[in-house]
Amino acid sequence: MAKAKKQPRPKAITPKGFRDYFGEEVTQRTHMLATIAEVYHHYGFEALESSAVETVEALGKFLPDVDRPNEGVFAWQEAEDDGKGDWMALRYDLTAPLARVYAQHRNDLPSPYRRYAMGPVWRNEKPGPGRFRQFYQCDADTVGTASMAADAEICMMLSDTLEKVGIPRGDYLVRVNNRKVLNGVLEAMGLLEDDPKRDDVLRTIDKFDKVGESGVRELLGKGRLDASGAYIDGVGLEDHQAEPVLAFLTSKGDTVTETMTNLRAAVGDSKVGQEGIAELELMGSLFAAAGYGEDRILIDPSIVRGLGYYTGPVFEAELTFEIFDEKGRKRQFGSVAGGGRYDGLVKRFTGQEVPAVGLSIGVDRLLAALREKGRLAATPTGPVVVTVMDRDRMADYQAMVAELRQAGIRAEVYLGNPKNFGNQLKYADKRHSPIAVIEGGDEKDRGVVQIKDLILGAKIAESATLEEWKERPSQFEVPRTELVAKVREILVSQSSDREG
Amino acid sequence: MAKAKKQPRPKAITPKGFRDYFGEEVTQRTHMLATIAEVYHHYGFEALESSAVETVEALGKFLPDVDRPNEGVFAWQEAEDDGKGDWMALRYDLTAPLARVYAQHRNDLPSPYRRYAMGPVWRNEKPGPGRFRQFYQCDADTVGTASMAADAEICMMLSDTLEKVGIPRGDYLVRVNNRKVLNGVLEAMGLLEDDPKRDDVLRTIDKFDKVGESGVRELLGKGRLDASGAYIDGVGLEDHQAEPVLAFLTSKGDTVTETMTNLRAAVGDSKVGQEGIAELELMGSLFAAAGYGEDRILIDPSIVRGLGYYTGPVFEAELTFEIFDEKGRKRQFGSVAGGGRYDGLVKRFTGQEVPAVGLSIGVDRLLAALREKGRLAATPTGPVVVTVMDRDRMADYQAMVAELRQAGIRAEVYLGNPKNFGNQLKYADKRHSPIAVIEGGDEKDRGVVQIKDLILGAKIAESATLEEWKERPSQFEVPRTELVAKVREILVSQSSDREG
Repeated sequence: MAKAKKQPRPKAITPKGFRDYFGEEVTQRTHMLATIAEVYHHYGFEALESSAVETVEALGKFLPDVDRPNEGVFAWQEAEDDGKGDWMALRYDLTAPLARVYAQHRNDLPSPYRRYAMGPVWRNEKPGPGRFRQFYQCDADTVGTASMAADAEICMMLSDTLEKVGIPRGDYLVRVNNRKVLNGVLEAMGLLEDDPKRDDVLRTIDKFDKVGESGVRELLGKGRLDASGAYIDGVGLEDHQAEPVLAFLTSKGDTVTETMTNLRAAVGDSKVGQEGIAELELMGSLFAAAGYGEDRILIDPSIVRGLGYYTGPVFEAELTFEIFDEKGRKRQFGSVAGGGRYDGLVKRFTGQEVPAVGLSIGVDRLLAALREKGRLAATPTGPVVVTVMDRDRMADYQAMVAELRQAGIRAEVYLGNPKNFGNQLKYADKRHSPIAVIEGGDEKDRGVVQIKDLILGAKIAESATLEEWKERPSQFEVPRTELVAKVREILVSQSSDREG
Repeated sequence: MAKAKKQPRPKAITPKGFRDYFGEEVTQRTHMLATIAEVYHHYGFEALESSAVETVEALGKFLPDVDRPNEGVFAWQEAEDDGKGDWMALRYDLTAPLARVYAQHRNDLPSPYRRYAMGPVWRNEKPGPGRFRQFYQCDADTVGTASMAADAEICMMLSDTLEKVGIPRGDYLVRVNNRKVLNGVLEAMGLLEDDPKRDDVLRTIDKFDKVGESGVRELLGKGRLDASGAYIDGVGLEDHQAEPVLAFLTSKGDTVTETMTNLRAAVGDSKVGQEGIAELELMGSLFAAAGYGEDRILIDPSIVRGLGYYTGPVFEAELTFEIFDEKGRKRQFGSVAGGGRYDGLVKRFTGQEVPAVGLSIGVDRLLAALREKGRLAATPTGPVVVTVMDRDRMADYQAMVAELRQAGIRAEVYLGNPKNFGNQLKYADKRHSPIAVIEGGDEKDRGVVQIKDLILGAKIAESATLEEWKERPSQFEVPRTELVAKVREILVSQSSDREG
């Protein structure tokens, strides 16, 4: 493959905003995806894997907050003989492909269609710290039902899933809101469907998390000085006109009944608003009947994320424990999953409105949270390494490895240049190997092997006194026939040390 | 999300050459990937997941048989303010990204670096029947070792993996060849490294599978009429000059010793050829020492696939059982995995030659083979469906489902419009549900539920006599408290029916 002509060497770098995942990062994610898939499947959802590539036409521009076509996605034009190939793009989420799949296969699919999907999605956005242009999503959706039982089920499944992957009850909360209630509020304010101020109000509500009640009040009115000193123009509503929005955002009471009373006041006699409240009440009663208390799922009109995107119930799961950021400051971990009801996606293709509700779990964020809490093993465990003292006896070393593997023990023979024995131990160290096996010519003649406990060895080197050293040696000579038994014994003692 | 302006509806279709995978297709693949990952991991390989996107520069043009840059990959140019963004592309295999990762992180990685990777790759090629532009690969590579023990280990691991995923010994064969032997043959023919005829000879050898010994003889000489009647120009070698190639391709003897003797004759006194033979012998001795006989791994100089790509040992796994194609004709299933030694990939980036050997399993082909042999369940099993007789008692039905799920039974409540009960049973049928649960107002009052064995019901409807019908009813009324126990009992009887 050598080239005659000299060319500058290519740079070995990941493209901007992408990254590589090594070892445990991969297997821990794989394990989490498998656990989530198990819960989804157990709830009756079927797997679906659509391709990473879709036509731009089919994807549409449903990416939230993006007004320009193709903006935010990785897209390219197919090369055709006439130069006018289709535009293709990488999927930016798993919902847009679901809508395409459902529209395409709807005659063959059961109705309702309950599917789960997991895999990477791609966003052509400016990368930032911890923000990558490829990340995993993990969705479950029920397509073709207007029943609130579907929405309630997905919220309860979300709660079950979080506990199953290792977030204990009390460390998370699923909050539920409803877009129709907000529509009722807008109606109560006299803002009709085509009023351009509706969008302004929606955008302002989105800032509730950041600027709080008084901030929203200012932004709905004349405007507001932001933290940087810049003046942000307001929507220009009169104080009394802004009241229903603020009543809505602050309607969370101590009990569900109180919250509902507050909401009723906020929507007045708006029919859609009352519908939204009835939906929240119905979901609340299903949660209560199934024993999901407010320590797991909470009806909370102050959550606003996604209200612009969804058409009915909206929910999100937040981790409630505190972590410390890079600068040592306490902060909340925040949202790891969200979802809601959306009725417009399939209609784009078929003209028929197909009600649907779905959930998306941000697996990478969830993994980060578990790591920060120390709930995922930080140090990986490598294979037992059989070192090579005599390169002509490779078959002997392979035989040892084969015996160990046969016994269910992860093992390998050192495959680098065996000349320098120190390099072999350095290799075992870099692999986080628990044990190294050594058989030189002398050992071979005497029918024994040396077995080195690398974890104990490292501990002793670090901190042990001479007495401890003598008491608990970290290297053992055993008959060759006892190789597997001794390795297993050491592995057991290491794992009880770890747990103890 | 409704648009005021009317636009033509987007077409709901997968892009050309892509497809969707449903239900068992997805879970069976996931399961196979997990099984393979387990074997790779057990052998000491670490997981790596690089991003799907690479710079075109880093990917290079290592795609076999492709001479034009970017040809064969999906590529696009990043939009930058100056209009000169980087070219990016979807990876076409997992080896090119490995070379980039190794070059980029080599100071932090153990040496040798043993990694496995699995995931989709993309090829911008003309799709054909059963040929898709996105498919899965499943690789393991050892980077940074020239030891034949690494090559031998990967061949043995391939054998183990195939058996682990369900291909019994005798139904597959791993065949091993060596590119250096071929180089020796070319040397023996007097074709030096820069002789343009070398490539012609390589291309001709690639056709050995199709045209056989006499065909290759003609193509190396004056030329040949192909099956369509077209005349294919030959390489133009004299008969005696073509002899070593034919001796090489037909050197497989009844024993390894015989094969080696034949190969020695073919390469004459070429040093590189003798090196290749020594490598094959060393691998053969490691296979023998580890007990991998010729029923699993065979040294066979007639396998030629990949000889142009690899630089040392080359191997491929073939399924040896026969299947029937669409037209009912018997055919061999053919190759499902391949690999070999390649030394040039990392050098592109660093200038240093880094010897490496790797294996790639074509998971989709392997799944297809298992399906054709009936070794993967053809009929999926859906969830138990709790039907809805009274839409106001959704909480009751959810409670049943919760009990079933708690007991480890996959279950769901029917979430479509419950008005038409027939639709509910049709739904259960489409989901391949084993059982439907029914509780109308009357049952509720009497504290009972109806449990319908849908699989037995379907069987009876198909074929049972009146006696059988009476003897084995397919619907049972049990007290509500015995719901879980009865459902479990039926599931057990269904699964023993399936196995019996």
